[in-house]
Amino acid sequence: MTAPDFPVATAPDETAAAAARARQASLTKPPGSLGRLEELSIWVAACQGVCPPRQFERARVVVFAGDHGVATAGVSAYPAEVTAQMVANMHGGGAAVNVLAQVAGAGVRVVDIAVDCDEPLTPAIGAHKVRRGSRNLAVEDPLTADEACAALEAGKLIADEEVDAGADLLIAGDMGIGNTTAATALVSAITGSEPVVAVGRGTGIDDEAWMRKTTAVRNAVYRARHHAGDPVALLQACGGADLAAIAGFCAQAAVRRTPVLLDGMIVTAAALVADLMAPSARLWWQAGHRSVEPAHSLALARLELEPIVDLKMRLGEGTGALVALPVVRAAVAALASMATFDEASVTDKKS
Amino acid sequence: MTAPDFPVATAPDETAAAAARARQASLTKPPGSLGRLEELSIWVAACQGVCPPRQFERARVVVFAGDHGVATAGVSAYPAEVTAQMVANMHGGGAAVNVLAQVAGAGVRVVDIAVDCDEPLTPAIGAHKVRRGSRNLAVEDPLTADEACAALEAGKLIADEEVDAGADLLIAGDMGIGNTTAATALVSAITGSEPVVAVGRGTGIDDEAWMRKTTAVRNAVYRARHHAGDPVALLQACGGADLAAIAGFCAQAAVRRTPVLLDGMIVTAAALVADLMAPSARLWWQAGHRSVEPAHSLALARLELEPIVDLKMRLGEGTGALVALPVVRAAVAALASMATFDEASVTDKKS
Repeated sequence: MTAPDFPVATAPDETAAAAARARQASLTKPPGSLGRLEELSIWVAACQGVCPPRQFERARVVVFAGDHGVATAGVSAYPAEVTAQMVANMHGGGAAVNVLAQVAGAGVRVVDIAVDCDEPLTPAIGAHKVRRGSRNLAVEDPLTADEACAALEAGKLIADEEVDAGADLLIAGDMGIGNTTAATALVSAITGSEPVVAVGRGTGIDDEAWMRKTTAVRNAVYRARHHAGDPVALLQACGGADLAAIAGFCAQAAVRRTPVLLDGMIVTAAALVADLMAPSARLWWQAGHRSVEPAHSLALARLELEPIVDLKMRLGEGTGALVALPVVRAAVAALASMATFDEASVTDKKS
Repeated sequence: MTAPDFPVATAPDETAAAAARARQASLTKPPGSLGRLEELSIWVAACQGVCPPRQFERARVVVFAGDHGVATAGVSAYPAEVTAQMVANMHGGGAAVNVLAQVAGAGVRVVDIAVDCDEPLTPAIGAHKVRRGSRNLAVEDPLTADEACAALEAGKLIADEEVDAGADLLIAGDMGIGNTTAATALVSAITGSEPVVAVGRGTGIDDEAWMRKTTAVRNAVYRARHHAGDPVALLQACGGADLAAIAGFCAQAAVRRTPVLLDGMIVTAAALVADLMAPSARLWWQAGHRSVEPAHSLALARLELEPIVDLKMRLGEGTGALVALPVVRAAVAALASMATFDEASVTDKKS
């Protein structure tokens, strides 16, 4: 199996961006006074190719669930069985992602890419399953090349399904005990950061677990040492099927000209891989939040993305992006619905 | 006329806060992983005196409009006539505050405290009017003691009206050409900051206007030099009727045990005055955002408040607080609606 092809994503529409900039200058407020909201509104207009932009009508979170063999190495505060349990919790609507999606006006879909369970929770949830858990990256490659390609393809197909069903904004989320270990290994390998600098506390581990996690990351990064710039080989040595699927999802969203709000550590690590496959895809992404995981900031810096909010979150699932979504909605609404100086008969700035 | 009395605001309910902390620990996520959202949810539970907290059903923005004689000194990029024009724009629903309030699920009320116009836009908008514009603080006290007290009383009454009508979260906003000059003078006088450090670019002024603005602030702060700790005298020398009304509003909201999201520079300067009158009132406030005005950060530091978002906004009107409101809503929803480990049959952290 070969890796799916991601055609070079064209940039968002510069004509619509120019119209959005001009409209911002005509609205009843001092120029620039809405700060980041103005930049976000221009980005949305450019992504949609129209000014004023439309409010998002079908924002969608897809949570990519997968287990990681490295969880058996004692790198997490939770046992591996929690992954499948949380898939059920998300399916039942009780997880943080469900609650925050409702507040932000987004729909949630959970997909089992690599959960270590006998049967997927439902056939639909398991429709794109690649394998039962990725292997233990502390001691071996977590994926074969075929599995990495299959997972990339799965993420690509899921993005296509969502866009075909009308999604106008996409968010990737993650669920998987041990997934910060794999994501940190990817960030470390791609950015050339020392594992001791990149490894964080994940779900809340103690010093001994942190040392085991750092050892695992170092072993994976060592195996990846000759693969810089090769996304499939990096996913094989350091990743996991869930991370590969998120990478395919983020790359394909850009191909389909659909804006993406990146979530935290896990999703941004996968986005780094997507950026290797499809360098202009990042023009279609905004960073929703900055998490407390050190590797997240390393990945954001590499992608030159500035997060919208910084609330010391470290949950994943898409929750950080969901807290940022209302900010983007506010940006769209301001550009679309505020009165202009002319319409409101307000005197403009002294020239 | 004497200043209204603000009884010592009692602290939010510690029993409800303790219950909220315990409930946070039982929800299906690693402890602390929702970061600031967890703290905000505990604060709302404490303010409401109940756990889980209720989602806000009647969040209200009150925009306090007032002119400032100092606008004639060339301290703003806009002419003074814009204040009355923007009151009409807000009444018509076309201002940024209207649009962002709709996104955040809040109602908007605009009050004419001291607009320099022949007649208030409507009798309701002018029901608490104190005077036509505050005097030019570059050359004289902007208010008499009686006017400062009347404006404090107006703000207090407006808070009472809103709480009596069912408001469960309050936001103060501002509108008034020249109001950053007065607000900066208050912050400078109360925090002991040099005017050259505190004065910012407001709506977007050039270097010459910045020098005139700094001179105006220095003159006002000089007149206030013997009044540290005397809120009425500070408002007389450095403030304005709109700022005094916001101070009364923020203090009375705490007396009425109603949480407040502070907006930017203007509202936070007024909150500094409220803090002098009612020192425990700040327990009922959160800082919605950090604006780019330097005096705003000085005021936030004095109040020991950490803003929820930092989006380089500098518009006022309540817009910064409105962008933060969905974050607080998300915090409330997570605490109220997420499943617990028991409910979802999810295995808790290894002990």
